[in-house]
Amino acid sequence: MSYNVSMDNSLYSLVDTLDRRLVSYGETITVVESCTGGALASALTAVSGSSQWFRLGLVTYADQFKRELVGVSREGLELEGAVSGIVVGEMVKGGMRLAQADYGIAISGIAGPGGGTEEKPVGTVWFGFGFGDQIEVAHMQFSGDRNMVRSQSVEFSLRKMLQLIE
Amino acid sequence: MSYNVSMDNSLYSLVDTLDRRLVSYGETITVVESCTGGALASALTAVSGSSQWFRLGLVTYADQFKRELVGVSREGLELEGAVSGIVVGEMVKGGMRLAQADYGIAISGIAGPGGGTEEKPVGTVWFGFGFGDQIEVAHMQFSGDRNMVRSQSVEFSLRKMLQLIE
Repeated sequence: MSYNVSMDNSLYSLVDTLDRRLVSYGETITVVESCTGGALASALTAVSGSSQWFRLGLVTYADQFKRELVGVSREGLELEGAVSGIVVGEMVKGGMRLAQADYGIAISGIAGPGGGTEEKPVGTVWFGFGFGDQIEVAHMQFSGDRNMVRSQSVEFSLRKMLQLIE
Repeated sequence: MSYNVSMDNSLYSLVDTLDRRLVSYGETITVVESCTGGALASALTAVSGSSQWFRLGLVTYADQFKRELVGVSREGLELEGAVSGIVVGEMVKGGMRLAQADYGIAISGIAGPGGGTEEKPVGTVWFGFGFGDQIEVAHMQFSGDRNMVRSQSVEFSLRKMLQLIE
């Protein structure tokens, strides 16, 4: 076997903590990913029993599907760009509505190596977190290559979501 | 950094071959995942430049979203179950329509450790492949734990898709 979708203990422990919380409260979570491209959904579903609380995940890589599937506004995309607080807020809101989920995480960033600008260099990542009616957004500037930016984004999003839930 | 979403050379080479083919023909691909839970989308988007040909991916973990989002029939789910040729065929067809993609891969299986039956033991995975108007399905019986079943499913789906394209 040449491809391992498993993960190390630190990340597993985050997902495991989330799993126990969601199972005990009968709650669900959904994700809407752009730059992480499915890596967050994959981390969540690596845990057996995740089907109890993970029912739908979306990888809206192209802006067209951010608009069409989760209802991101044209205004947000045009004024602020796909990597922005307004867009991740709309992504998570739309994803939670579609998935009928209690919690949601949206991630949009510039994983590199291309796509960076002076204003938004490679490693710029925006996160949207939804819990109930509340939406919170966060912004991080990661360093490292494409895989490192994606990996750190997955881990950060889980840590932050757990803080918000608890 | 404690979580690495990168992958080994063998899988990277498969995605890289697919990347060169899709870029040179201006074609696109979409994925609809169940048991792999985003791991296939994550592998595809690990390659920089994948946004040229990967625009949307769906993780339809719950049957409800297999029906509502990609139009899997209630009959297929009730008669054959979510892990079946008819369902992966409908998943890939619906996903390609939604994503307006030239190619599609759908995966539905029993990654374990729970969920296995005598007829469909853990490691049973069905694959749907779409290219143009054609849909082909395949069935594999993998061994190993949850991560190994998921990993082998990702790799098999890419190898088979490349064969069908070429």
